[in-house]
Amino acid sequence: MILENALAGAAAAARAFGRTTPADRAAMLRAAADALDAAAGELVPSAMTESRLPEARLTGELARTTFQARLFADRLEQGLLHDVRVDHADPDWPMGPRPDIRRTQVPIGPVLVFAASNFPFAFSVFGGDTVSALAAGCPVVVKAHPGHPGLSRRTAAVVAPHLPDGVFALIEGVDAGAAAVQDPRIKAVGFTGSTRGGRALFDLAASRPEPIPFYGELGSTNPVVVTPAGWAARAEEIATGFAGSVTLGSGQFCTKPGIVLVPDAEAFLAAVPELSAGPMLNERIEGGFCTAAREMAAAVTVARGEVGGGPVLFRSTAVEVLKRPELLELEVFGPAALILEYADVPEALQVLDAVGGQLTGTVQGADTDPDAPELVARLAEHAGRVLWNQWPTGVTVSDAQQHGGPYPATTAPTTTSVGTAAAARFLRPVAFQNIPEAALPAELREGAPGPRRVDGITRA
Amino acid sequence: MILENALAGAAAAARAFGRTTPADRAAMLRAAADALDAAAGELVPSAMTESRLPEARLTGELARTTFQARLFADRLEQGLLHDVRVDHADPDWPMGPRPDIRRTQVPIGPVLVFAASNFPFAFSVFGGDTVSALAAGCPVVVKAHPGHPGLSRRTAAVVAPHLPDGVFALIEGVDAGAAAVQDPRIKAVGFTGSTRGGRALFDLAASRPEPIPFYGELGSTNPVVVTPAGWAARAEEIATGFAGSVTLGSGQFCTKPGIVLVPDAEAFLAAVPELSAGPMLNERIEGGFCTAAREMAAAVTVARGEVGGGPVLFRSTAVEVLKRPELLELEVFGPAALILEYADVPEALQVLDAVGGQLTGTVQGADTDPDAPELVARLAEHAGRVLWNQWPTGVTVSDAQQHGGPYPATTAPTTTSVGTAAAARFLRPVAFQNIPEAALPAELREGAPGPRRVDGITRA
Repeated sequence: MILENALAGAAAAARAFGRTTPADRAAMLRAAADALDAAAGELVPSAMTESRLPEARLTGELARTTFQARLFADRLEQGLLHDVRVDHADPDWPMGPRPDIRRTQVPIGPVLVFAASNFPFAFSVFGGDTVSALAAGCPVVVKAHPGHPGLSRRTAAVVAPHLPDGVFALIEGVDAGAAAVQDPRIKAVGFTGSTRGGRALFDLAASRPEPIPFYGELGSTNPVVVTPAGWAARAEEIATGFAGSVTLGSGQFCTKPGIVLVPDAEAFLAAVPELSAGPMLNERIEGGFCTAAREMAAAVTVARGEVGGGPVLFRSTAVEVLKRPELLELEVFGPAALILEYADVPEALQVLDAVGGQLTGTVQGADTDPDAPELVARLAEHAGRVLWNQWPTGVTVSDAQQHGGPYPATTAPTTTSVGTAAAARFLRPVAFQNIPEAALPAELREGAPGPRRVDGITRA
Repeated sequence: MILENALAGAAAAARAFGRTTPADRAAMLRAAADALDAAAGELVPSAMTESRLPEARLTGELARTTFQARLFADRLEQGLLHDVRVDHADPDWPMGPRPDIRRTQVPIGPVLVFAASNFPFAFSVFGGDTVSALAAGCPVVVKAHPGHPGLSRRTAAVVAPHLPDGVFALIEGVDAGAAAVQDPRIKAVGFTGSTRGGRALFDLAASRPEPIPFYGELGSTNPVVVTPAGWAARAEEIATGFAGSVTLGSGQFCTKPGIVLVPDAEAFLAAVPELSAGPMLNERIEGGFCTAAREMAAAVTVARGEVGGGPVLFRSTAVEVLKRPELLELEVFGPAALILEYADVPEALQVLDAVGGQLTGTVQGADTDPDAPELVARLAEHAGRVLWNQWPTGVTVSDAQQHGGPYPATTAPTTTSVGTAAAARFLRPVAFQNIPEAALPAELREGAPGPRRVDGITRA
């Protein structure tokens, strides 16, 4: 769509769409999800052609995508996307008489979503950013990823008829995306992509006359710590699990384990089975993988594979990378990881403190592992999700999911881009003071259903 | 304190303070609040000397400040500051087997707080930003406001002994504040002050190599709409209430009603009783008031009072200001307001759509007022708090309070700087996947007390 039409349509639709009921929006999300499922026979082949990803993966990803939309619909119907608080008037409130005051959230306004290349369904046109913004009541303008333009247009064509005019639009092109970030009609941005591209757009959003929230999910190297006890007890399981995770989706996941701290690098490398990966998404991403891998190879040893020829493992030590901590943030987007040998757990902890913000951090340990509590606590200081004896690739969509973390994992560390809490990014709190019942939002009226906090007490 | 000592101390203290229990932090907040109350006899006279504010106001403000700290302590003990979510492992989760995943929040890290001049207790050294950050588990470095340096040092001296070493520090000076915003050890900033000063610091925070959240509460003109029915039914009450609100605290509140839309400006002005206000906080603020008032006087009529001589009311019409909408965002910080006559309610709504982001918006109406629902809904699109038949000055501290709004009211429209939800600004969500019970944060363990969402169901 022409950019001006998309922006004007979103601005014109915002008020009416923002006033739809949660049940209205739930019905729209379900209708769009049903339509996408019904179009799987057309969409999946289109995605295969453009992304080089296999059919099974894409079929599963589409199922995940429509499930995600329906989960937001469920939570809308259950009154679980809004944080409702009611404080009745209280003449005895200790700081002075309290008026009747009630808090809910309203949509932030039209949202711009930058689709990602590596999940052509789940993080693209009707992905998590789009459905969480629609659930919040915001019109969405999606900037299509150039990696799958045909699929993007088809997805948009399937979805749009189930949403009111102006509520959904697809735009294309780098310039259109940058112009939209700076347009006063856009009130928030969701982005999934590289640190470099995301930071450039973040800077545009922050430098507007009216700066707006920019929810960028950028880079992560996802450190994994194999404990001494874990390696002693579960060496083969760990090495095999790692091989599967680092090559899953050809390593083209933001949660790919890129840094692995091990007590014995030689033993670990010997135990890792042969690595194989499918083709990469496109030549641009393959080129980026090779460039980053060459940069890493210039600094450390190539222990397995070859730069430019599929999966590759690098090797160094904790002591060495602590002298060059920039290597810990060098994301080699593809089937690659840096294996670091540490002398003792305090040395591994030092590396964790140097890695910067992360989407995930993982501990591979043993039952009653003496190092588990401190490693988990330390990873929680730096990452948005901490795992034990599982692998970070594969991100479930649920209420408790958190996909984010300190910069550069995201530009908005108090938020998530996956899971039902993602809608909060596009909801703005408003307090209603002494407002007559008839003029209150429905969820704030006396006796309205749904969980809430009333006079400081949670009601289920 | 020397800046480097403050920052180094905060960074060194962050880990241990972040791992204190909510009960530990509640006890610290209570001890500090008790110490402040006990020192009232020393603090209030100090505040009177430096702020020119009367004793009764300052005594009340100190009570509000210590109440606020104790309310955060209550909510910590009740488990109400964290949004706890537990999703048990579910092999039948529709998108694929779900691991056990549990979400809570961890402290974001050391917080820098810029104190305000106009509330020497409640928005200063131990004000809302400070106590919400401490409640979240973050060390705080406060940049003292130069309007009350002696009081700031005394307050810090009373509070500091009740907090662990490094957890609280006071710094002074514009340069120290700007340097601290850019220091990598600072992870978030709270600010209350002018749009100009706040925007400059926001720009510094956003342009860091690691950008950080900047929670700035900046300017607002707080529109009030008097409906035709409201004016017919409650003219005297409205005019009297307005006179009290516009002069309260000499108009030096960010919630002062600065724009009043009325059906009959002449009748409104005739009904407003004589306006009187105490001295202003200091010469700098008085100078700023005069400058802004002169700017307004150059564009519209001075209807009451004189520029440079205490309270002043300006007068124009909706039609005129719609031609010069910048006047709607011109905050004349002091006892002043712009009275705008509108021809009909649609014209008043047009003005509301032009006013930009606001902390508050108010409707003064009548019982069964036909215009109430649309005016309330429209103000909710632009403001953080909407009031009916009350006045926006006086901001209660409670769970449902919202003090924020779209830019320029704040730089972070999804957050609040007043009320218990303010702690969320300094809490970063973390998901724990498949973590052994002993390594989980206490609130995430099975059977832990406190409200939570378990497998999609709210538990009180």
